Amino acid sequence: MSKKKLPSLAVVGATGAVGTVMLDILTKRPNVYGEIRLIASARSAGKTLMCRGEELTVVALSPEAFDGIDIAMFDVPDEISEEWGPIAVAHGAVVVDNSGAFRMDPEVPLVVPEVNPKDAKKRPKGIISNPNCTTLSMIVATGALNKKYDLKELVVASYQAASGAGQAGIDSLRAQITAVSGTNAGDNARDLREHVKDFGPFPAPLALNVVPWAGSLKEEGFSSEEIKVRNESRKILGMPKLKVSATCVRVPVLTTHSLAVHAIFKKKVSRKDAQDLLRKAAGVELMDDPENHIFPTPADVVGTDPTWVGRVRRSLDDDHALDLFLCGDNLRKGAALNTAQIAELVAKEFTK
Amino acid sequence: MSKKKLPSLAVVGATGAVGTVMLDILTKRPNVYGEIRLIASARSAGKTLMCRGEELTVVALSPEAFDGIDIAMFDVPDEISEEWGPIAVAHGAVVVDNSGAFRMDPEVPLVVPEVNPKDAKKRPKGIISNPNCTTLSMIVATGALNKKYDLKELVVASYQAASGAGQAGIDSLRAQITAVSGTNAGDNARDLREHVKDFGPFPAPLALNVVPWAGSLKEEGFSSEEIKVRNESRKILGMPKLKVSATCVRVPVLTTHSLAVHAIFKKKVSRKDAQDLLRKAAGVELMDDPENHIFPTPADVVGTDPTWVGRVRRSLDDDHALDLFLCGDNLRKGAALNTAQIAELVAKEFTK
Repeated sequence: MSKKKLPSLAVVGATGAVGTVMLDILTKRPNVYGEIRLIASARSAGKTLMCRGEELTVVALSPEAFDGIDIAMFDVPDEISEEWGPIAVAHGAVVVDNSGAFRMDPEVPLVVPEVNPKDAKKRPKGIISNPNCTTLSMIVATGALNKKYDLKELVVASYQAASGAGQAGIDSLRAQITAVSGTNAGDNARDLREHVKDFGPFPAPLALNVVPWAGSLKEEGFSSEEIKVRNESRKILGMPKLKVSATCVRVPVLTTHSLAVHAIFKKKVSRKDAQDLLRKAAGVELMDDPENHIFPTPADVVGTDPTWVGRVRRSLDDDHALDLFLCGDNLRKGAALNTAQIAELVAKEFTK
Repeated sequence: MSKKKLPSLAVVGATGAVGTVMLDILTKRPNVYGEIRLIASARSAGKTLMCRGEELTVVALSPEAFDGIDIAMFDVPDEISEEWGPIAVAHGAVVVDNSGAFRMDPEVPLVVPEVNPKDAKKRPKGIISNPNCTTLSMIVATGALNKKYDLKELVVASYQAASGAGQAGIDSLRAQITAVSGTNAGDNARDLREHVKDFGPFPAPLALNVVPWAGSLKEEGFSSEEIKVRNESRKILGMPKLKVSATCVRVPVLTTHSLAVHAIFKKKVSRKDAQDLLRKAAGVELMDDPENHIFPTPADVVGTDPTWVGRVRRSLDDDHALDLFLCGDNLRKGAALNTAQIAELVAKEFTK
C-alpha cells in the first residue's frame, strides 16, 4: 500500500540552543515534511521563528500539541522527554529524542544513520534515541574503520566545547574571555579565580584553562559523560563487550567537540589504507596533511556537518592500532543534524 | 677524599622564559652553590638580574665564560647546546642540558630525579639531559605506578600550554584572547581567522581553539613532540620496548601542560591502591575527589612544583589499566625545576 502523504513534524524544544540549529538544518536539507509545528514551554509560546522561509508560531507543550503529528523531535531535558515522549507516541507520533532518557533502554534503538540505519525500524516503544554529542563526534569515523578492521578497543580523550553545556555554556565562556582579556590572569596558581568569579555551568574557570569534568559522578570515579561514550559506542556499533576507556575534558572552545582516539582492531591496519577508507566514508571529511599544517581544528569546522578526521597514524608500537584526531560540531552532527537524519529515515517510511 | 668547596654554577640562557623561572627556583631552593654566573647571548650581556637576593650581571656566551664553572645548566635552542655544551665540558663543567640536542644520545643520561637519579652518574660525555616538558608532566606519577604495577603500555593525549612555545607563545595567546574578546569569533567556520590574523608560533589560531600539532613532522605522520614522549619515556623508565602512543594537542592555556593518560600494567590494579600510592609518591600531589569538584586544572596549579594527579580510575573494561588526568607546570617541573634538581644531584658529588 502506497502512502503518499508527506509526514508532519513537531520540533519540541524549538527555542533552545540545539532547537535553533535544528530550524536552520530543516531549512537547508531536502524538504520531506508537510506541516512543521514548533513546540516549547508555555513561556515561549506565541514567539515566531523562521523555518523553511515560513514564519511559524511556537505553541505550548500539551498533549493536544501532538494531534496530527507523525514525527516528533525532542530537544529538551531528560525529565521532559521521559514524561512527554510517551504522550507524543500515544498521540500517534514516532519520537526521535535527543535527551539521555531512553538511550540505554533495550527497547529503544540508538541510531547514527551512517552506522546503524536499520536499527531505526526496530522501535517497539515508538521512540528512537539520538546519541550523546561526544559519542557522535567520533562514531561515524570509528564505525567506518570498524567495518573494515573489526574494532577491539577504544581509548578516547575529549576536548569538549562550552556549548555542550547549552547556551549558558556559550554565554559563560564569552564572559570569561572578556574578564581575562588584557589581564595577567593565569600567571600564578589560582589567580584566574580572582578574575573569573562566575564559572557558569562549569565546575571551574574555563577561559585560559581546561576542566577534566563533564556531567555527574558515576561508578568508579567516572563521569556520566565518560560512561555515555562507552555505553553508547557499544550500543550503536552492536558490540556489547567492546572495551572503551574515556577521559572527558572541557576546553575553552565555543562549539565543536574534538577527540584524540586510539583505536585497536582485530585486523592489521595501515596508515595509507585507513586514510583512503576515511576519504571515501559517508559523513567523514579527511583533513590530513600535517606537513602543510592541514588538520582539523574546532574553530575551522564549526557550523559544518561532517566528522572531520586528521592526524591519522598507525601506532608505532602496534600494527593493529590507529591514532586519530577528530572534530565534530556538537550542535549539528552531535545533536540537531543526527536527529534530523533519523527523522528523515522515518519520513521515508511514509512516502515509499 | 673529602671535597668541601661549594660548586660554582652557570645558567646559560638566563634571560629566556625558562631562564627567568630558573632564577626564581635557584632563589627559593636550598643554596648549594658557590658563585652563580648568568650567561646569555651577546645581545643580553650587561643586563642585571636578581638571583638569591644578589644582583648579577649577565655575561656573553664565550669559551672563557665557563672558566672556573663546575656545573653549567643550558636552556637554549638545540643548536646552541650542541655547539656550546661540549665547550663547557672541555672547560671542566658538568653540563645539564634542557634542549633536545643530546636526549637520545646513548652516552647521555636522561634524568628525572624522582625516577632514575642513579643514571645521573653515568655520563661519559660530561652531559646530562633534561627531558621534554610534555614527558616530564606525566613521568613522575607514571614512574611511581610503574614501580608497583609494571608498566606495559601508555596511551597519552596532551593538553599543552602556549608557553611550551616560549615567551612568544605566551605573548601570542594573550594578544589572541584580546582580539577575540567581545566579538562573535568562533560562531562560524573559519571566522576566528578573521579576528586572529597573527598566530604567533602556532600553526593555527589558538584562542577559542585547540590545535593538534606541536613540533615538526616525523615518521608515519607523528609530530616530533609525540615521538619525544615515546622515546624519552622509554629511556627514563629504562624500558626500551615500552609501547607508547601519544597525540599532542595545544590548548589555549598559558602555562602548565595537562595529560589524559591510559596506562596498562602487567599486574592488576585497584583505584584505591593507586590513589594511596600516588598520595605518598615523591613529587606527586593527589587531587582526586570529583564529587566535590576536586581535580587538578592547569590554572589552579601553575607556578607550583609537583605533578598534580586527579581523576584516578581503574578502566571499567580492563582490570590492568588506569585512567588518569595529570597537570604539571611545563616551565617548572617541565623545564627549570627538573634541571635544577639534576644539578643538585651533581652538586652533592662536590660536597660529600
